[in-house]
Amino acid sequence: MSKGTLLYAQSGGVTAVINTTAAGVIATARANGLKVLAGRNGIIGVLREELIDTSKESPAAIRALRHTPGGAFGSCRYKLKSLEENRAQYERLIDVLRAHDVRYFLYNGGNDSADTANKVSQIAAAFGYPLICIGVPKTVDNDLAVTDTCPGFGSAAKYTAVSMLEASLDVASMSESSTKVFVMEVMGRHAGWLAAAAGLAAKSPDEAPHIILFPEIPFEEEKFLAAVDKVVKRVGWCSVAVSEGLRTPDGKFLAEAGGKDAFGHVQLGGVGPQIAQLVKSKLGYKQHWAVPDYLQRSARHLASKTDADQAWAVGEAAVKYALKGMNAVMPVIKRVSDAPFRWKIEPAPLSKVANHEKTLPKNFIRKDGYGITDKARAYLEPLIRGEDVPPYGKDGLPVYVRLKNVPVKKKLADYAIADR
Amino acid sequence: MSKGTLLYAQSGGVTAVINTTAAGVIATARANGLKVLAGRNGIIGVLREELIDTSKESPAAIRALRHTPGGAFGSCRYKLKSLEENRAQYERLIDVLRAHDVRYFLYNGGNDSADTANKVSQIAAAFGYPLICIGVPKTVDNDLAVTDTCPGFGSAAKYTAVSMLEASLDVASMSESSTKVFVMEVMGRHAGWLAAAAGLAAKSPDEAPHIILFPEIPFEEEKFLAAVDKVVKRVGWCSVAVSEGLRTPDGKFLAEAGGKDAFGHVQLGGVGPQIAQLVKSKLGYKQHWAVPDYLQRSARHLASKTDADQAWAVGEAAVKYALKGMNAVMPVIKRVSDAPFRWKIEPAPLSKVANHEKTLPKNFIRKDGYGITDKARAYLEPLIRGEDVPPYGKDGLPVYVRLKNVPVKKKLADYAIADR
Repeated sequence: MSKGTLLYAQSGGVTAVINTTAAGVIATARANGLKVLAGRNGIIGVLREELIDTSKESPAAIRALRHTPGGAFGSCRYKLKSLEENRAQYERLIDVLRAHDVRYFLYNGGNDSADTANKVSQIAAAFGYPLICIGVPKTVDNDLAVTDTCPGFGSAAKYTAVSMLEASLDVASMSESSTKVFVMEVMGRHAGWLAAAAGLAAKSPDEAPHIILFPEIPFEEEKFLAAVDKVVKRVGWCSVAVSEGLRTPDGKFLAEAGGKDAFGHVQLGGVGPQIAQLVKSKLGYKQHWAVPDYLQRSARHLASKTDADQAWAVGEAAVKYALKGMNAVMPVIKRVSDAPFRWKIEPAPLSKVANHEKTLPKNFIRKDGYGITDKARAYLEPLIRGEDVPPYGKDGLPVYVRLKNVPVKKKLADYAIADR
Repeated sequence: MSKGTLLYAQSGGVTAVINTTAAGVIATARANGLKVLAGRNGIIGVLREELIDTSKESPAAIRALRHTPGGAFGSCRYKLKSLEENRAQYERLIDVLRAHDVRYFLYNGGNDSADTANKVSQIAAAFGYPLICIGVPKTVDNDLAVTDTCPGFGSAAKYTAVSMLEASLDVASMSESSTKVFVMEVMGRHAGWLAAAAGLAAKSPDEAPHIILFPEIPFEEEKFLAAVDKVVKRVGWCSVAVSEGLRTPDGKFLAEAGGKDAFGHVQLGGVGPQIAQLVKSKLGYKQHWAVPDYLQRSARHLASKTDADQAWAVGEAAVKYALKGMNAVMPVIKRVSDAPFRWKIEPAPLSKVANHEKTLPKNFIRKDGYGITDKARAYLEPLIRGEDVPPYGKDGLPVYVRLKNVPVKKKLADYAIADR
């Protein structure tokens, strides 16, 4: 007999371990007699009453979900407007939850999603519908307030540091007669956390990356070119990590792909090749550039064990908080100590998380603006520690699960999402 | 007492496993009482008499070399001219070999390097200098004639297939409200081997990559856009793998980065964003693109076991051939059977390898030009099979070795390489 129904939905850009969290939610809910539905494509599916019955998935499938990247139920970039702007949408949301007797709503996402979960909680209360809302943290950008880190970041950070290390060994071997400068673009719209993570590859000033371009530090072309030239003359070659969110001194993004996403954020891309081209045209050095893009946030094969453990733990804690009746909270990660690295999960009010963007602290960036400090290293290194390797098949590929995603029968009339 | 001196040098673009070959060479040479010198930055170091004494490296370092990417002694892009054009250069080469009593010259590279090794062998004979020259195969492009595959390709292929699989799980989850088309650019100047390898990720027509753009198939814009649109309408999203060497119907590269390398090859890059931009402007779909560049050929953390085993085996065989007095040959990989996958190493004359580029067979490409056939799959899959994982440190990074690279004392006058 079910002790109630829990609805889980994924939101925003997915990560290598958001499904690890999903697996933690489902396994814990099952162990506690809860039924788990999932929103197909996040809150969009909830509004459309496109729900997935996760009880149709085998225990083996849920175990495999733990090590499968992407968002198994689909995610979305869709932000609910304020109650004043679109009251009908919130009413619809409550209608759907009520129709399926959902008592627990878990929303797995970043800042915008914490905001949504918080609003849904307030509105359910205003409508007199008994609902527990829990935000579950996730984002490779690591920009959520309150929590020590965000699940998804550690694995993307590990990917970034390992890729910088490996590609730079390549550049070093080619530098005498070929490539002298290598530029790798990393994600991070407004916060240089992943750019900083690239810095973990360097254990000395002569090791790559020699220069990190943070979104927090306005880009000065002449100073940068002089720094590159100095490194090439000293080391023989130079590796640069550049954040997609790098800005000019007057605050504009260096590279704007043109489009905007559903949250109104400018879609970035292309600053890597731009910086490489600048080096080539101004300094004449042969260059190569890489833009891993989605590869860096989906590389489950290179997941950090710390990250996977934390991703599971926030999922597990979210269900436990829900069962305790804790409303409008998010399980966050609290670091107990750096060395030995110890952490625990604790609840934080959603209101404290929502829409507060956590940028890189000043004392994490080296004085010259091009590298990370020991403080940054002490913070970052434990997050990429350990490996959480998926099983591989005889075909040489990781064995990732594709869920059946059996739809729940609709009970309500169709609903068109007006403002899409 | 040394049984003679062997000189090993790396050439051209390095791979995730060229050092695995180097480790195979050094370990086998040591076991057989040979002294091993290495050219610093390949043939350039030999000409400059910049040689490295590998006997200064510990057995542990050589074991770690097996799993370290990049070229440990430095590689180069430098092609010797013909004897007629630069006789002095060949004389210098023989002078250096003679000065250090080198009796075995092992040159680890691609087509151009096989050609160089072949020429050096002929010239040594012409000069009456007793020298055994062995070419050792290497290239992620997989375009060497005679051998079943080239060490380096299997690991780059595995990286390409895994990256396509992972990133596409990401795209699939975002497609409802965000990214609908994902484009990944892969290496391969003239041959679509790595593009084909991306196809290993798809086990059905609805799985990624849905479209592969091969350098062997001229790009037809209208046909391509129609194919993308059809996939998006059927599947909801579309992943594209595009070769850096994609050409227009009149034979021009779609993207030319402008520069040329030392071999006179055009330096490519940027066709990935170009194709993505085309999709966006013509079809209006939100897109993301990735260009892994050097990441795909240096990802030792994701090396294929088949590839690592073969890389070691060609290094080991090269030394054994040398000791048997086999001159102007290359140890190549001969496939004995697909299932079970069995292979062996056998010698091939360098003259048969040199400067013959092996492109993708017609029957490896699907009739519509956008995918791979079962024949291709049967060939490719064994090459990415198995994992050869490096050890990881407490810092969360693979433990890669940096050799001491102790220089050998010069015995000759300085030499400037004239035509650089």
